[in-house]
Amino acid sequence: MARKSLAGGSVSKRLFVVLVAARNPLNIGAAARAMSNFGFVNLRVVNPYELAFREARSAVGASALLKYAKEYKSVADAVADCSLVVGTTAAHKRKLDHELRPLHEGALAIRKKLQSETVALLFGSEKRGLSNEDLSYCHWLMRIPTVRERPSMNLGQAVAVCLHELVREANGSLQAEKHPAARAAELDRLTAMLLDALRASGYVKPTIAGPTEEKIRRLVRRLSLSAEDARVSLGMLRQILWKMQSKD
Amino acid sequence: MARKSLAGGSVSKRLFVVLVAARNPLNIGAAARAMSNFGFVNLRVVNPYELAFREARSAVGASALLKYAKEYKSVADAVADCSLVVGTTAAHKRKLDHELRPLHEGALAIRKKLQSETVALLFGSEKRGLSNEDLSYCHWLMRIPTVRERPSMNLGQAVAVCLHELVREANGSLQAEKHPAARAAELDRLTAMLLDALRASGYVKPTIAGPTEEKIRRLVRRLSLSAEDARVSLGMLRQILWKMQSKD
Repeated sequence: MARKSLAGGSVSKRLFVVLVAARNPLNIGAAARAMSNFGFVNLRVVNPYELAFREARSAVGASALLKYAKEYKSVADAVADCSLVVGTTAAHKRKLDHELRPLHEGALAIRKKLQSETVALLFGSEKRGLSNEDLSYCHWLMRIPTVRERPSMNLGQAVAVCLHELVREANGSLQAEKHPAARAAELDRLTAMLLDALRASGYVKPTIAGPTEEKIRRLVRRLSLSAEDARVSLGMLRQILWKMQSKD
Repeated sequence: MARKSLAGGSVSKRLFVVLVAARNPLNIGAAARAMSNFGFVNLRVVNPYELAFREARSAVGASALLKYAKEYKSVADAVADCSLVVGTTAAHKRKLDHELRPLHEGALAIRKKLQSETVALLFGSEKRGLSNEDLSYCHWLMRIPTVRERPSMNLGQAVAVCLHELVREANGSLQAEKHPAARAAELDRLTAMLLDALRASGYVKPTIAGPTEEKIRRLVRRLSLSAEDARVSLGMLRQILWKMQSKD
């Protein structure tokens, strides 16, 4: 499965999600949950609010991912082994020295990098985001396209949105479970049966049958019926027609 | 700004986020927060766990969006004025009668629809997701591409990821569809009339009415009927039903 090729295997292991100075244990837990939902395994925390981190780690049902998250004293240490360091921000107006890429562009660049190298993705604290010092370790920044008036996202949600974007098109082979469409001959049978029922009911008058027939044929084609639904509909109509005719 | 063209203005107002039987006030609040981050305003809740909903609404800093969220007793009521109803699911293996679209495909279809019509996006409860009955009101389902081993997302994160996907590449180039689609209430009427006809014909036996009703409801949703075609179909069925009953 293509899904595996990014999120499973070595590629997804090359991404390090780095939470800097996170304060709320629920958010740390939520970040970890989103990581496992999207197939990432490496969580690093920098100077977490101690109590919060201990709580999140010891929570019932805390994932292995969270239990084995690595703790660092500084951003520098946490990203030391990474080839690319990307900061996330809600900044709209702030003057930044960094290149600021919209999420979908940034994610594309990260995906490419992950093919062969390690990448750190930094998230700041709930209140303040990443500090200027934190940002100074980043190659560039990535912004989730929130509205100007409400830019600041919940930490767990921001992590979920970014990670989803990273795996978003990795699974091109994941198919919609579409049902095979009805063939023209099946639609013809259904149209004929429907016309019979409409004639039997008096809906279609013999005098105006021609144009009505065309209308009905077009209507049946617009329904985008699957083969199975066409079969079921035909069965319904057959029973209805039988009922109407059995009483004449 | 392109951003505004989708999430601002009337387009984003046409989306209704519907939380069905949500239990955790934090999740309801998180859903509301993600909505305001991405510029959506209409939240509807169906049978929320009462206490949770009251708590979420009265929380310090609860948004206007949350305070004015509308409450409904049933999914049918909550989506009655919507032209397209989409359910979200974590399903990987489950047998579903619905077409299941990956998030990025589904979001594209929703964006198109939102150019001119109303869309309901349903999220199920934290524990069980959407029930089969809930799903029977949906035209199709959308799946967030989580990994097979950890499919189940946190509710607030699922909402954030879906809404982000909806505004992701907002560019006004998407065209309005020509024929306005039938609204859910119209499909309900059509479903009811069809069921009456099937009962009158003997196709539906009273003993197995329940599951059949769900099947029929789903079938009608799969037809992607325009408002005009729904109206015509209703007229046909009315005449057919009249014919069958006039002879009893």
